[in-house]
Amino acid sequence: MYYKTAGESHGHGILALVEDFPAGLEIDKSKIDLELRRRQGGYGRGERQKIETDTVDILTGLWQGKSTGAPITLWIRNRDYRIDTAPEITQPRPGHADLAGSIKYALPIRPILERASARETAGRVAAGALAKQLLEKHGIIVAGFVRSIGSLSLPTPPEELAPNELLQRRNSSELYTVYPEHDTVLKWRIDEIGNTGDTIGGVIEVRVFGAPIGLGSCMQWDAKLDGKLAQAVMSIQAIKGVEIGLGFESARTLGSVMHDPIGYDNTLLQTPSQGFVRKTNNAGGIEGGISNGQPIIVRAAMKPIPTLKKPLDSIDLNSKQPMPTIYERSDVCAVPAASVVVENVVAFEIARQLKS
Amino acid sequence: MYYKTAGESHGHGILALVEDFPAGLEIDKSKIDLELRRRQGGYGRGERQKIETDTVDILTGLWQGKSTGAPITLWIRNRDYRIDTAPEITQPRPGHADLAGSIKYALPIRPILERASARETAGRVAAGALAKQLLEKHGIIVAGFVRSIGSLSLPTPPEELAPNELLQRRNSSELYTVYPEHDTVLKWRIDEIGNTGDTIGGVIEVRVFGAPIGLGSCMQWDAKLDGKLAQAVMSIQAIKGVEIGLGFESARTLGSVMHDPIGYDNTLLQTPSQGFVRKTNNAGGIEGGISNGQPIIVRAAMKPIPTLKKPLDSIDLNSKQPMPTIYERSDVCAVPAASVVVENVVAFEIARQLKS
Amino acid sequence: MYYKTAGESHGHGILALVEDFPAGLEIDKSKIDLELRRRQGGYGRGERQKIETDTVDILTGLWQGKSTGAPITLWIRNRDYRIDTAPEITQPRPGHADLAGSIKYALPIRPILERASARETAGRVAAGALAKQLLEKHGIIVAGFVRSIGSLSLPTPPEELAPNELLQRRNSSELYTVYPEHDTVLKWRIDEIGNTGDTIGGVIEVRVFGAPIGLGSCMQWDAKLDGKLAQAVMSIQAIKGVEIGLGFESARTLGSVMHDPIGYDNTLLQTPSQGFVRKTNNAGGIEGGISNGQPIIVRAAMKPIPTLKKPLDSIDLNSKQPMPTIYERSDVCAVPAASVVVENVVAFEIARQLKS
Amino acid sequence: MYYKTAGESHGHGILALVEDFPAGLEIDKSKIDLELRRRQGGYGRGERQKIETDTVDILTGLWQGKSTGAPITLWIRNRDYRIDTAPEITQPRPGHADLAGSIKYALPIRPILERASARETAGRVAAGALAKQLLEKHGIIVAGFVRSIGSLSLPTPPEELAPNELLQRRNSSELYTVYPEHDTVLKWRIDEIGNTGDTIGGVIEVRVFGAPIGLGSCMQWDAKLDGKLAQAVMSIQAIKGVEIGLGFESARTLGSVMHDPIGYDNTLLQTPSQGFVRKTNNAGGIEGGISNGQPIIVRAAMKPIPTLKKPLDSIDLNSKQPMPTIYERSDVCAVPAASVVVENVVAFEIARQLKS
Repeated sequence: MYYKTAGESHGHGILALVEDFPAGLEIDKSKIDLELRRRQGGYGRGERQKIETDTVDILTGLWQGKSTGAPITLWIRNRDYRIDTAPEITQPRPGHADLAGSIKYALPIRPILERASARETAGRVAAGALAKQLLEKHGIIVAGFVRSIGSLSLPTPPEELAPNELLQRRNSSELYTVYPEHDTVLKWRIDEIGNTGDTIGGVIEVRVFGAPIGLGSCMQWDAKLDGKLAQAVMSIQAIKGVEIGLGFESARTLGSVMHDPIGYDNTLLQTPSQGFVRKTNNAGGIEGGISNGQPIIVRAAMKPIPTLKKPLDSIDLNSKQPMPTIYERSDVCAVPAASVVVENVVAFEIARQLKS
Repeated sequence: MYYKTAGESHGHGILALVEDFPAGLEIDKSKIDLELRRRQGGYGRGERQKIETDTVDILTGLWQGKSTGAPITLWIRNRDYRIDTAPEITQPRPGHADLAGSIKYALPIRPILERASARETAGRVAAGALAKQLLEKHGIIVAGFVRSIGSLSLPTPPEELAPNELLQRRNSSELYTVYPEHDTVLKWRIDEIGNTGDTIGGVIEVRVFGAPIGLGSCMQWDAKLDGKLAQAVMSIQAIKGVEIGLGFESARTLGSVMHDPIGYDNTLLQTPSQGFVRKTNNAGGIEGGISNGQPIIVRAAMKPIPTLKKPLDSIDLNSKQPMPTIYERSDVCAVPAASVVVENVVAFEIARQLKS
Repeated sequence: MYYKTAGESHGHGILALVEDFPAGLEIDKSKIDLELRRRQGGYGRGERQKIETDTVDILTGLWQGKSTGAPITLWIRNRDYRIDTAPEITQPRPGHADLAGSIKYALPIRPILERASARETAGRVAAGALAKQLLEKHGIIVAGFVRSIGSLSLPTPPEELAPNELLQRRNSSELYTVYPEHDTVLKWRIDEIGNTGDTIGGVIEVRVFGAPIGLGSCMQWDAKLDGKLAQAVMSIQAIKGVEIGLGFESARTLGSVMHDPIGYDNTLLQTPSQGFVRKTNNAGGIEGGISNGQPIIVRAAMKPIPTLKKPLDSIDLNSKQPMPTIYERSDVCAVPAASVVVENVVAFEIARQLKS
Repeated sequence: MYYKTAGESHGHGILALVEDFPAGLEIDKSKIDLELRRRQGGYGRGERQKIETDTVDILTGLWQGKSTGAPITLWIRNRDYRIDTAPEITQPRPGHADLAGSIKYALPIRPILERASARETAGRVAAGALAKQLLEKHGIIVAGFVRSIGSLSLPTPPEELAPNELLQRRNSSELYTVYPEHDTVLKWRIDEIGNTGDTIGGVIEVRVFGAPIGLGSCMQWDAKLDGKLAQAVMSIQAIKGVEIGLGFESARTLGSVMHDPIGYDNTLLQTPSQGFVRKTNNAGGIEGGISNGQPIIVRAAMKPIPTLKKPLDSIDLNSKQPMPTIYERSDVCAVPAASVVVENVVAFEIARQLKS
């Protein structure tokens, strides 16, 4: 099971092709649409999200609402189609693919930014939302949320927080955090930054509950679950760091504190951990590249969006003279939206391990 | 171009099979041996490294010392062969693949730990050291070094530090840092931790100098260079976090500060940047999943080694009763060694992009 | 560069997703449509072809008519959409995926036949027709034609026949043979078989002119050009045999006769053969898994279509009682159509070798 | 599960790396050696086979004689090591990779022929012989045999011939046919051809007994079992044609005769066919790219060996002047040996389908 995306920001639409999805599963299109809408929401988004109200069309792979083992095509039509008439840009924007992409492909900036745009993540979210329906059948819940906006960090949600309560709290926050009571201060901060024409990033966390022991492998470097999660997350637009469990903090932690002692509780035999209990989960649910029955914990650092109202220094590609960047509509803070993307790409990676 | 490894810690040896390596390159075996020796060195290593003195045999793929386009087999023979007679272990060690691996593969712990062992990284280093000979031809230098041991962090080496000076300083440090003048305090700290039977991790940085614009792609999520680097690095034993450029710090940085302004200097047309200059390199040389001609900067967090003299709490897999872990020989701190591994896996990922 | 297809016979449409197509090529949609129409034509086709008049929509990957390096989505809409309401079939048809597919995927026959249907080849033809535009730029011509219908074989077109003349003759034959003067007798034979409610297959040949020396590789079994062509062709619906050059005849030929002597003619230095000339081309342009500069010759055997007016013996999947197959509309002879498919899948395999 | 080979004809040895082989299987090295010896035997082989007596060393992936899920390295050491000192050849041999390979890789002929040599098939046989031990556990038998030598064809062995009797007859034939009583005439023919300095090919058949319904897939072109078998077989040195079931004969057969009627016999519920019986097996056990529970039948055409005592016309690569080929030791007829190769590559492809 894997997927590829296609499509441009102002082209006909965004597509995800999902291969090797198991046959016989009832697919609920509305659950995919819900994730697409979540991706478009979150405090801090800009004008584009008002133009597009993404819903998915399932073009192939279903029969009477069920998967059949055939490739599934998820199609999210763009309303704002104008790729061929959109104005050319000749000042590459720092932080985007503009400069390197136009040199690599020997093309103007427009076709590069159209494909490199974060609108592509609509396809990744759709694929993940499909994968989640498979996870649901296996009792696996994937929950993504915002941990910090810029330098404003929220506390680590306690390990004991039940998946459903975590999701409920997250869903009642405009910023997709687990602490909706702090929305006001975060929104105030985003507004403040937006008013100066600037942008801000943040940190996202995803927890996977109910994953069985044995996803991934210790047998080959490119089969390890942590490696696959790292690739999937780091390849999301604007992500600059990925951690599992304690992550960078583990570099500062003693071995006797870091490693999660193994206990046994035979009343938990029927749970994903098969009775093997841990007092801590510093490993973030993955040891030796394999899931160990504890919640899987992934964190990602998102940089501030590189399209700013306040122009950045650049040059004109033709004249090579200094020329500031031009502002296309954008967001001040897309961390909540990105949390939806990270959640769904993690979901897909977990689901694809179930098969093998 | 890609590679796979094979082999067990106390089996016949460790192997790396490198496919699609370009034909016609003179291969210097001694350069691979040098990296293997560096992997075995660094202050803080334990007894095993005295038993093995790794050198590579190139079993296939060369003709009269040159690559031919055929698959290249790198073979590092183990001296300490005893996989079939090594004592069985029934207490899974926290932080290792022991528990999850033996459940996934329905095997005792011994065969799992034999393959999951960090000795496998000898193969990854050999493959990377081969790839470096290709990079060398393209004028690309990959330099890995230690940034911190536990909570003892060294300063960020200045961007202006020339590759050769960086390497020279790194090579004169017993801890593979760029600040050999601080070796004493770091060694003292490692000894102190070792004396308590504990272990400690750290942070590693790799800089790639001379990479051209255009490695990787913005066209598909799994073709992005940052994603590929993240997978390669996160899949190394004991790595729990990966960053590109500013990494997690970027989540706390304003957009107007984060993004590296683009300038132009036509005296630099013949350099990898093709004349496109940046005042900063917060992006770490990758924008939109593509190298942008600036140095590529990757950091990795290594957890403390999970094999401790001081036993950790575990259980016996047969009786399910509590039983502490047993100590096999190990290291107190393998961060210098891991810096060699990270350097070489990054080198391979960069080299494989050159072809496509 | 590779492609996947998706879509069902009576679903919304058939899709081909082409990855890693080079950037900067002007794409002519009408050339794809032409191949789609050719696939629907040829004497012997049935009613379905009158319902569908296939044309392609290019949903992604183009900017101002040019490829950009982004994934290209080719979409062929079905007019005859009725997958969810089409009557269930409970008698598996011999020669189809019906029986094995419904057991493998634990589904009724309908969803299996919908995906296994030869209508899927519209996607393969579209991908090949796109690839041909890349081949054209390299001066490579791929020409497929019919060699026999049932036991009626046409002569081997002489090696000297120029590509354009071959194509001209092929294009003036209703049966896509190189001998339009024999159309009448072949059509008479097809009618005769159709009148008995039966079906008939045939042999198809594809010649690739202008392919350079060096496509494929001798370095790994799965990189050989002949192996890749064999997979691509054998995986087409109803194909049961594939040959390169002399093919099965080579098993009966002496070594001294089989192998094509190598000569040299420096007036041909600028041709694909780089001056290396051959008196014969029994190898069919591939030696050691690599193209050798001579025309590449592939032949395929097509079985008779397994959907017959005359019912075949089968059973009812529910009752397990004997029950004859039911006739869905079909063709008497689809060899001309299949020649278009073989031509285009060969074209794609050749084109994807150009990159590497 | 897949494999790659490495190694040169006169290098240190030939290697096969098998990935994702299931854990927990007792591996019998002697069964691999047996296949390697069979590959070296068969009437018509030349001098090289007297120098090498191939046996396998299993370098990685086993623990106490069992597979562990780790990559398995099969190593067949060459006795005749002399790759770096073997004389250079400057006349490319027609029918070999010599010309195209040396141009593609910009190397002399020697390194090309060393890798392209059929000695590489020792690795493919070893991988297949390993895979057979997995098949054995599933009750699947793969039997390869010679159907014809040059124009001397043997009858089609009856469908009813039991696997074990087929193997017994095959094993008592010096030419690996099912009709040992005809060995004399075939040997006489081979001698006759050898005396003239010429070579001869033939046709090979492989039957797979006991394969379950559902191997392969109808859902994607590159997942079809027949396509995978065709690639695997066509990529073997000297193979120019591949057929499934009736193969090319099916192009001449009416639909009503070709397609195997489906019946049901509930006394056969526990067999691979799950009770679905066929009066004929013209499909060769594969319908719609999926195994259907009947014996899988694959045939391959082998061209005569292109290394002849009788020189062929060629040129000198340096002077470009006509110059006949030089004779390196070789065989007159390697069809029996090739039948072992085809058998084992088919076995591997079947086995790798069992997992997914």
